[in-house]
Amino acid sequence: MTPAPKMICMAGLGYGDRVTVYIDSKRRFVVRVSPGGILGTDKGYVKHEDLVGKEYGDSIVTSQKCRAYLLKPLPIDYQHGIDRVTQIVYPKDAAFMIYLAGITPGSHVLEAGVGSGFLTISLATFIGSTGKVYGFDINQHHLEVARRNLEKAGLLDRVYLGLRDIRKGVKLVGLDAVFYDLPDPWNALKTAYNVLKNGSPILVYVPTVNQVERTVLAMRELGGFVDIHVYELLLREYEVGKDATRPRTAMIGHTGYIVFARKIK
Amino acid sequence: MTPAPKMICMAGLGYGDRVTVYIDSKRRFVVRVSPGGILGTDKGYVKHEDLVGKEYGDSIVTSQKCRAYLLKPLPIDYQHGIDRVTQIVYPKDAAFMIYLAGITPGSHVLEAGVGSGFLTISLATFIGSTGKVYGFDINQHHLEVARRNLEKAGLLDRVYLGLRDIRKGVKLVGLDAVFYDLPDPWNALKTAYNVLKNGSPILVYVPTVNQVERTVLAMRELGGFVDIHVYELLLREYEVGKDATRPRTAMIGHTGYIVFARKIK
Amino acid sequence: MTPAPKMICMAGLGYGDRVTVYIDSKRRFVVRVSPGGILGTDKGYVKHEDLVGKEYGDSIVTSQKCRAYLLKPLPIDYQHGIDRVTQIVYPKDAAFMIYLAGITPGSHVLEAGVGSGFLTISLATFIGSTGKVYGFDINQHHLEVARRNLEKAGLLDRVYLGLRDIRKGVKLVGLDAVFYDLPDPWNALKTAYNVLKNGSPILVYVPTVNQVERTVLAMRELGGFVDIHVYELLLREYEVGKDATRPRTAMIGHTGYIVFARKIK
Amino acid sequence: MTPAPKMICMAGLGYGDRVTVYIDSKRRFVVRVSPGGILGTDKGYVKHEDLVGKEYGDSIVTSQKCRAYLLKPLPIDYQHGIDRVTQIVYPKDAAFMIYLAGITPGSHVLEAGVGSGFLTISLATFIGSTGKVYGFDINQHHLEVARRNLEKAGLLDRVYLGLRDIRKGVKLVGLDAVFYDLPDPWNALKTAYNVLKNGSPILVYVPTVNQVERTVLAMRELGGFVDIHVYELLLREYEVGKDATRPRTAMIGHTGYIVFARKIK
Repeated sequence: MTPAPKMICMAGLGYGDRVTVYIDSKRRFVVRVSPGGILGTDKGYVKHEDLVGKEYGDSIVTSQKCRAYLLKPLPIDYQHGIDRVTQIVYPKDAAFMIYLAGITPGSHVLEAGVGSGFLTISLATFIGSTGKVYGFDINQHHLEVARRNLEKAGLLDRVYLGLRDIRKGVKLVGLDAVFYDLPDPWNALKTAYNVLKNGSPILVYVPTVNQVERTVLAMRELGGFVDIHVYELLLREYEVGKDATRPRTAMIGHTGYIVFARKIK
Repeated sequence: MTPAPKMICMAGLGYGDRVTVYIDSKRRFVVRVSPGGILGTDKGYVKHEDLVGKEYGDSIVTSQKCRAYLLKPLPIDYQHGIDRVTQIVYPKDAAFMIYLAGITPGSHVLEAGVGSGFLTISLATFIGSTGKVYGFDINQHHLEVARRNLEKAGLLDRVYLGLRDIRKGVKLVGLDAVFYDLPDPWNALKTAYNVLKNGSPILVYVPTVNQVERTVLAMRELGGFVDIHVYELLLREYEVGKDATRPRTAMIGHTGYIVFARKIK
Repeated sequence: MTPAPKMICMAGLGYGDRVTVYIDSKRRFVVRVSPGGILGTDKGYVKHEDLVGKEYGDSIVTSQKCRAYLLKPLPIDYQHGIDRVTQIVYPKDAAFMIYLAGITPGSHVLEAGVGSGFLTISLATFIGSTGKVYGFDINQHHLEVARRNLEKAGLLDRVYLGLRDIRKGVKLVGLDAVFYDLPDPWNALKTAYNVLKNGSPILVYVPTVNQVERTVLAMRELGGFVDIHVYELLLREYEVGKDATRPRTAMIGHTGYIVFARKIK
Repeated sequence: MTPAPKMICMAGLGYGDRVTVYIDSKRRFVVRVSPGGILGTDKGYVKHEDLVGKEYGDSIVTSQKCRAYLLKPLPIDYQHGIDRVTQIVYPKDAAFMIYLAGITPGSHVLEAGVGSGFLTISLATFIGSTGKVYGFDINQHHLEVARRNLEKAGLLDRVYLGLRDIRKGVKLVGLDAVFYDLPDPWNALKTAYNVLKNGSPILVYVPTVNQVERTVLAMRELGGFVDIHVYELLLREYEVGKDATRPRTAMIGHTGYIVFARKIK
């Protein structure tokens, strides 16, 4: 009673395809295979032409004879692979925000500020080709970097990028979720309320406890939101050895707080 | 230069629709509106017929005059709303596993053991209507509970449920990700390797550090996996008050560890 | 080249001696052996007269045939054993505050507010018989409870207890450390400054981040303090089993923040 | 009804006195004032002769015109100030171990292995001049470094240092507590049992979960110990600013686990 095996027809990589070139944990690069392209790393370079015809799961060697694995690009691969002009929303936090929001294929969501676009890449991944991210920022340079990063990830067509102070409102309605990474989200709650579908969620990401407090108090004062929760995630990594397993010594002690709420009429 | 507003045509709730009835944080119920149905709670009951014609964002009052809000059902609403026969994969962990796996609309994934089906509901949500979850368990009763929970969530058509000891293999290939919540995942690594697409990820969830160690050591010994990482997430909630913001006293100190890896040839 | 063994002359317990009666982790009782005394527990009672002549390390059985071990009383045994009228400073926090303060035998320290006296018991333990705790509170009932708890612990002679609003100052100088567990420690910083020896530390314990911020900003504004640090400790317990070791599910998510600083001229 | 002010007669620093020279959080030096001595730092040097006559709480300027405060040396000041040949027991852990052990003035305790002697300094501080630390290590070089560090701290007279494999036993009895920082503490439990007073505690510090498991299982198998607990402490520091308070980004994710138990007959 097992289902029929899914057919897969895996042709090798060609120009225009994306692949994660993985040397080690700190050296993972999302590459769009291009004629004449070269990936340079401190462990040697890789000519894009040598990637053509290879498949995910294959490995190659760099010019310095280091082995590199070719993997399917995943959202986390962009954590280190994008150009950065701002602090990014960390993967653990992006993951939980997307989950809490219940982003599904076809969702239309608003994001402000876009910053370097790391969360935007994640959102664009999970909404699929029928969804849309309306991304705003007040900084033209940030938008340009985000555009470049989205293009690199092959997701630009799912995203609208606009230069706009979201606190002043925007002509959008009926959105499935709102994501804010702003210094003063409490000043943009009315905008969020106006663009959200009734019963749908807002996610706010802020680094300080003062911003948490102001955001939640503003939500309560404004009304229109229920199920308000504040979350903080701590991520530990472990080192595994035979009879020698333990958490890593290095850890990021703080990234940001997540405020969640849902719009009511 | 703002995009044209998205049109929304929100009809009221009808029979067969799903809605989250939210009284407070601990009283949230996902209801499928049915003729003659009644939602019973310790804060009074609600007749399904009184939900008909209401919209997300509206509120009603229970028979005990408690206000309840009608919200769009989100994956987290099922944390307390499903029947349980096993410990579930907690939302914070389900979120990170799904994110790490890069589940996208249309993904085909394997899950074992299915247990109560909470992770299955989350997976089915994020893969969309064009994706598929192949869910296995060795316990017939678990599968029945999972089936009921998936039906309640309206996601059963995206899931194949099979009674099978996954350690013995399964006739599937070319899957986008594998999710294991098994007591001895190290005995099922070959199955995972065989069903996964090259370059694609496996996610393992285990409660003890001994299981972490055995899983990772087995991955290394077996070969065929790179980018092996072990994660643990700690979730804190905060209580917010004017000049009185602090973490909650109660906290869950441990749920499970997440092991991540990617298949190579 | 080993030192000569230390002579120990261990007589059995007599009336007036203190002993921890340990049944299990949640049932540990510090008893002062008294003629006619009875220790009542939900696992049966123990007559004090049956403790006479026993030694630390011995065990007895309760009236319900539960085994109970007789142990040397330690500061942590008072966590559950004292009468409580206020939230106590948790052992992990008391430990770190005492360590940071460098309390040594003979230290003279100020504590306000005393509350139930749990920190007071710890302080009195570590300063030894030649030290002194000057403990203040604005609540007469708290002081009475603290006095009773200190008497039970046999440490009352090392403590001066006074009914006083410490924010208004106190006629003490040259103290080795100050410990505050007050709702508004920023209003008592001048008192702390006046009573402390030059170069010596103050430790402040507060439950909210707002209190942390106000305390530190007041220290900076007032001047007179350097090496200002804010700490938070999270304590996890582990369950150990053969091949089944993991953190406990239950955990206290928050107790209080610790502010440390040192007085300069 | 306030107690009479304690008299203090604070003479200035003289040769032989100890003082903490504090420039900033990362630049704190415990100095024993010596004729001709010079404290060199990357913020300039300080001649010891310029410290003579100064008092705790005073400040001076370095040769590079940086202000440095003169403070009473505290146990934590030695965290960065000692020579290191081994990983040290971190202050948060040393604090909790000392607290759990109920070290009091006059306590006699065993420590193995001594390593760089940081925990030894802390123990010697809290036991006072009437207490004794019996410190052992199998590495002669470690003992020499520990001796130098203890001398620097002025605490060498409270410590006996011996070259010995503690697993083979030692001729000591009646000790108030045992502290182990060994790779295989399970092989030294009998020694601990033999030297401890009945009813008194043992504290074990290990970096891996495997060592935790083996230690606890060995305690259970050996018998003779009750109230066995395993603890892990996570320490977060906070950055405080007006309306900008948050945990620090950098954090130490793991130091060691603490195993606690008490000897019974």
